[in-house]
Amino acid sequence: MSKEFFTVTPVREVFERIAEFPRVGADTLSITQASTRVLAENIVADIDVPGFARATMDGYAVRASATFGASEFNPAYLTICGKVDMGDTPALNIGQVQSARIATGGMLPPGADAVVMIEQTTEIDETTLEVYKAVAPGTNTVAADEDFAKNREVLSAGAPLRPQEIGLLAALGRNEIRVYQKPIIGIISTGDELVEVDQVPPPGRIRDVNTYTLSAMAANAGGLPRTYGIVADQYEHLLAVCRRALAETDMVLISGGSSVGTRDLTMEVIESLPESQIMFHGIPVRPGKPTILAKSGGKALWGLPGQITSAMVVFDRIVVPFVRHIGGSAVFLQHNYRISAILTRNLPSVQGRTDYIRTRIAEKDGQYHAEPILGPSGLIRTMVEADGLIEIDMNTEGIEQGETVSVIPMR
Amino acid sequence: MSKEFFTVTPVREVFERIAEFPRVGADTLSITQASTRVLAENIVADIDVPGFARATMDGYAVRASATFGASEFNPAYLTICGKVDMGDTPALNIGQVQSARIATGGMLPPGADAVVMIEQTTEIDETTLEVYKAVAPGTNTVAADEDFAKNREVLSAGAPLRPQEIGLLAALGRNEIRVYQKPIIGIISTGDELVEVDQVPPPGRIRDVNTYTLSAMAANAGGLPRTYGIVADQYEHLLAVCRRALAETDMVLISGGSSVGTRDLTMEVIESLPESQIMFHGIPVRPGKPTILAKSGGKALWGLPGQITSAMVVFDRIVVPFVRHIGGSAVFLQHNYRISAILTRNLPSVQGRTDYIRTRIAEKDGQYHAEPILGPSGLIRTMVEADGLIEIDMNTEGIEQGETVSVIPMR
Repeated sequence: MSKEFFTVTPVREVFERIAEFPRVGADTLSITQASTRVLAENIVADIDVPGFARATMDGYAVRASATFGASEFNPAYLTICGKVDMGDTPALNIGQVQSARIATGGMLPPGADAVVMIEQTTEIDETTLEVYKAVAPGTNTVAADEDFAKNREVLSAGAPLRPQEIGLLAALGRNEIRVYQKPIIGIISTGDELVEVDQVPPPGRIRDVNTYTLSAMAANAGGLPRTYGIVADQYEHLLAVCRRALAETDMVLISGGSSVGTRDLTMEVIESLPESQIMFHGIPVRPGKPTILAKSGGKALWGLPGQITSAMVVFDRIVVPFVRHIGGSAVFLQHNYRISAILTRNLPSVQGRTDYIRTRIAEKDGQYHAEPILGPSGLIRTMVEADGLIEIDMNTEGIEQGETVSVIPMR
Repeated sequence: MSKEFFTVTPVREVFERIAEFPRVGADTLSITQASTRVLAENIVADIDVPGFARATMDGYAVRASATFGASEFNPAYLTICGKVDMGDTPALNIGQVQSARIATGGMLPPGADAVVMIEQTTEIDETTLEVYKAVAPGTNTVAADEDFAKNREVLSAGAPLRPQEIGLLAALGRNEIRVYQKPIIGIISTGDELVEVDQVPPPGRIRDVNTYTLSAMAANAGGLPRTYGIVADQYEHLLAVCRRALAETDMVLISGGSSVGTRDLTMEVIESLPESQIMFHGIPVRPGKPTILAKSGGKALWGLPGQITSAMVVFDRIVVPFVRHIGGSAVFLQHNYRISAILTRNLPSVQGRTDYIRTRIAEKDGQYHAEPILGPSGLIRTMVEADGLIEIDMNTEGIEQGETVSVIPMR
């Protein structure tokens, strides 16, 4: 075992290199299948939406000028000349002192330029309307192009598709669209101590947790995990599996190697792969410092810590933006919002690195409280008990009980 | 059109009735397929995890007492009697002044009770170790049952399965588990003005956006959407489709009916269904006040506003906890964390109802800023531009620019 000291790369510099990795290809998909995917084309509205002026309230379509000066004490009186049916082009034409019953969403008839809310009127008889409030032109209506105007670019390639984007595509009649494929993430667990999940580990051995945890994280990040099982800490074998994974996937994770010896093995394997280049070895993040990123044949090859909680923190904080980028997403950094919480105990920290501390999040009196979970990073239990990670940035030297901390929820 | 006034039900009371709806059934699934699902059995550890005492650092396994008093100026000297191989039961037995090389994750050999970090030692020669720091028993190790002790209940039915829970199940050798089925959510769009997505809407009509948006939201909430297409505002037809949807699904959403007329129709249909009961009609939420919840044959039947942004707010804030509950989740309320943001303009609000205002979220100088998006709730654009919803609670009468607001991110 050597007392190797490696140079850590600032996290900012790590992310600056994301653009060196190419994006995956695109497929055509029905919008009913495209939610949570990433758009791979620019969408230009080829029609105005909604396409006609609509009422946004139940009431009466009027000419606004006919209501000017109207009040409870001085109502305006209009003729009711009919009713706008939903989904119909109104046959009516609204003259100066005329009105028509209209429901929310109804098409404004020609001649009308506003809607008076039903609550601000009384029907004196079948054909006479009393109006208690003046409306300006456009009141309680949307214009024909108010949602989207024809020829406007409404979504750009790289947009993650949320329910509202799917709805927008439906409004434009785009039932098929181009989306990025899900990047295939190869997952390799290394370690002579690992056994498969369906085996009973003999003393000194444990079941392979990392393959399952990292597969679920890769899927949550928008990837398609492909597992390569357990590889013993043996050069030829690890090299062969890495080659195969690099050929079959878009990104490879080797997890294991929290010990210096295994880390050396991973480095040795990476260095003997063709067209391989170590991009960084060591990041100022705890847990997770010994993380390795290499570029091999244009693909990202990660050496993640073997301790499961360290591997999870590195995956969530460092790897996810790379998965999002190669998956086409234009929004790949700042992928989690932070919540503010009151710290329930003192936390030490060291300047020059970002600390992530597993924490429970409790809500009391309308405020979040962060209750740090202690315990070695080999224990999956500490992650199961955690609701999030407290982030202590590299310029802070420790935080005291009662101070406000920034917490990244993990759900 | 009647000027109907309905009694609104406080939101708290709405959620109090969740338990009246039964949960869906369970299936057996591989843990590789179970991520994001909800556990439907209690999991008891049938072994200690990790199962043996392990090193958490690279270094030397020792008896702690042999290092007592050791310091840089007064090192302890130990014999190196071998090396612990990963995955092996060490054949060594550590005597009082002995030590063995060990890597992170290695099994502590008999006789040893602590690990000295490699950085706090020097190998004087092949068999002599200089130790600069005293360690207490247990230092840099985890106990055989420190992650999970045998017979402990480690997860309960109702737990949402995140990557760490999947990892825990792997550690326990549970490659198959019981999970709740995804609740099937029937989605009906009503409105005479609606046309299918693949049609060009004539004047006065628009494409059906709600079916697509609500399907994506139902899937994001853990449900399985089943769509019933567009139903005209016609009693017999809506009744027939509702009956069919109630028979085939676990929950039904009728969206449409933001106008009083359509709302009346929805109410009429609900009232003529067998074993039907209106649970509430009107909630103190804006947008979304005219929301209806009925229980029909034990299933939840919702009348959602037709305006798409209103329907989205109601689904996210009110319906999702019901979907989670019937989907087996024990954690169904407070399903989103709120972030704190500085409001960039004054916002009016009315006491007695909770307001949700679409907002952009910008990050400046390490703080979130909420930039409200204005516009009628019929415009899907305003949701596409939004990163979240500002929540103004029912006891607040408006918020001024520069004040801190609570924002629910929408991603």
